[in-house]
Amino acid sequence: MNLLLLLDEDFIAPTRVRLSGRRLVHAREVLGAKAGDALKVGRLGGGIGSGRVVRMEEDALDLEVTLDQAPPPKLPLTLVLALPRPKVLDRCLQAATALGVARIVLLNAWRVEKAYWTSPKLKPEHIREQLVLGLEQARDTVLPELHLARLFVPFLETDLTELGPGRRLLAHPGATSPCPRGLEEPVILALGPEGGWIAPELGSFARAGFEPVSMGPRILRTETALAALIGRLA
Amino acid sequence: MNLLLLLDEDFIAPTRVRLSGRRLVHAREVLGAKAGDALKVGRLGGGIGSGRVVRMEEDALDLEVTLDQAPPPKLPLTLVLALPRPKVLDRCLQAATALGVARIVLLNAWRVEKAYWTSPKLKPEHIREQLVLGLEQARDTVLPELHLARLFVPFLETDLTELGPGRRLLAHPGATSPCPRGLEEPVILALGPEGGWIAPELGSFARAGFEPVSMGPRILRTETALAALIGRLA
Repeated sequence: MNLLLLLDEDFIAPTRVRLSGRRLVHAREVLGAKAGDALKVGRLGGGIGSGRVVRMEEDALDLEVTLDQAPPPKLPLTLVLALPRPKVLDRCLQAATALGVARIVLLNAWRVEKAYWTSPKLKPEHIREQLVLGLEQARDTVLPELHLARLFVPFLETDLTELGPGRRLLAHPGATSPCPRGLEEPVILALGPEGGWIAPELGSFARAGFEPVSMGPRILRTETALAALIGRLA
Repeated sequence: MNLLLLLDEDFIAPTRVRLSGRRLVHAREVLGAKAGDALKVGRLGGGIGSGRVVRMEEDALDLEVTLDQAPPPKLPLTLVLALPRPKVLDRCLQAATALGVARIVLLNAWRVEKAYWTSPKLKPEHIREQLVLGLEQARDTVLPELHLARLFVPFLETDLTELGPGRRLLAHPGATSPCPRGLEEPVILALGPEGGWIAPELGSFARAGFEPVSMGPRILRTETALAALIGRLA
């Protein structure tokens, strides 16, 4: 947690917040915060800045906050991710958020096990928790948009147009074109499941204008591939 | 596991191996291997290719192997990583290996807790296990070199010269220069601990010719930063 993320309900006056729970424990036990200290804070959906500790007690931490900086800009990047195993999902959501992805679509695919879609990790409050962890890690305040696309074909044929313009890239270890670098334009990047996309899916992506691109012959774990691809595109 | 990694002691004839344990279980339960199937294999330190199942029993799997391809090339990259928390170390070693890092140095730093150096995760057999998992993930056969540098100053003043030539880059979120892209030359990349390098360490790196570079204002987890930086440099 590199930033205490403040919610609207934390504000007890226009520039004063009262924190409890996880953020209080973090401030006390990890940051060793005491009266007078300045902590890095940000308001969910708003600015970032500094919070001066004005009261530190067992059950509440009061901060006088100045939010005078903009959060870091998002990447103009939509990540279309074949729904990973529940254990991997949390790490992917946190990493994508921390890296500054503007929009995340979790997509079904042939090699996505059906059971993944009924995991409690897909509950909105659990997903939101992962996104918040990513924001706190990266000192950001703006949640990425998140969409669930449980139907592969309708997503590619219809929903995709709602995502707006963007160069469409399909990460695929077998592709012959290397993944481009340092793009300035918006990008929609699709990343497959463990075991990869199957041939009909590759066909659907091709018809939807996705260029297959590769990071080389190495097959990477989803969370590693995601960070390496975004590091390269950013 | 995208490749069954074969050890010298697995060979019962020049082109025949007998597997048991973890690899047997994987072949049977994950790959559903049966007689006649061809499995992706590679010999530790050697070539990669295909293994035809000639016997599949409860306690042993025999493969007739053809190792006619070279493993993927390594990146000309030495990663100097401030020793991460034990829980994070495994993931970093696996990811760095899978990404093709040629050499990994685990370095002490002011913000590395002393206890990390006595973790059982630093035992040679445990480290090797993580490197092997990274190779199996990426279909590689060549272990990266691994060095432990428990003393920061002697490493920077003396041991570093033994790493040979290479552009020296210091990943630091506060740096004003962006991390370069797509380097062809050898690189020595240093990545700091949680909380970052302290000022005297930054001074030591500067004297040793390291250029501070950044991936932007976002603070990333070690394993995310590592993959994003390597994706960008590769």
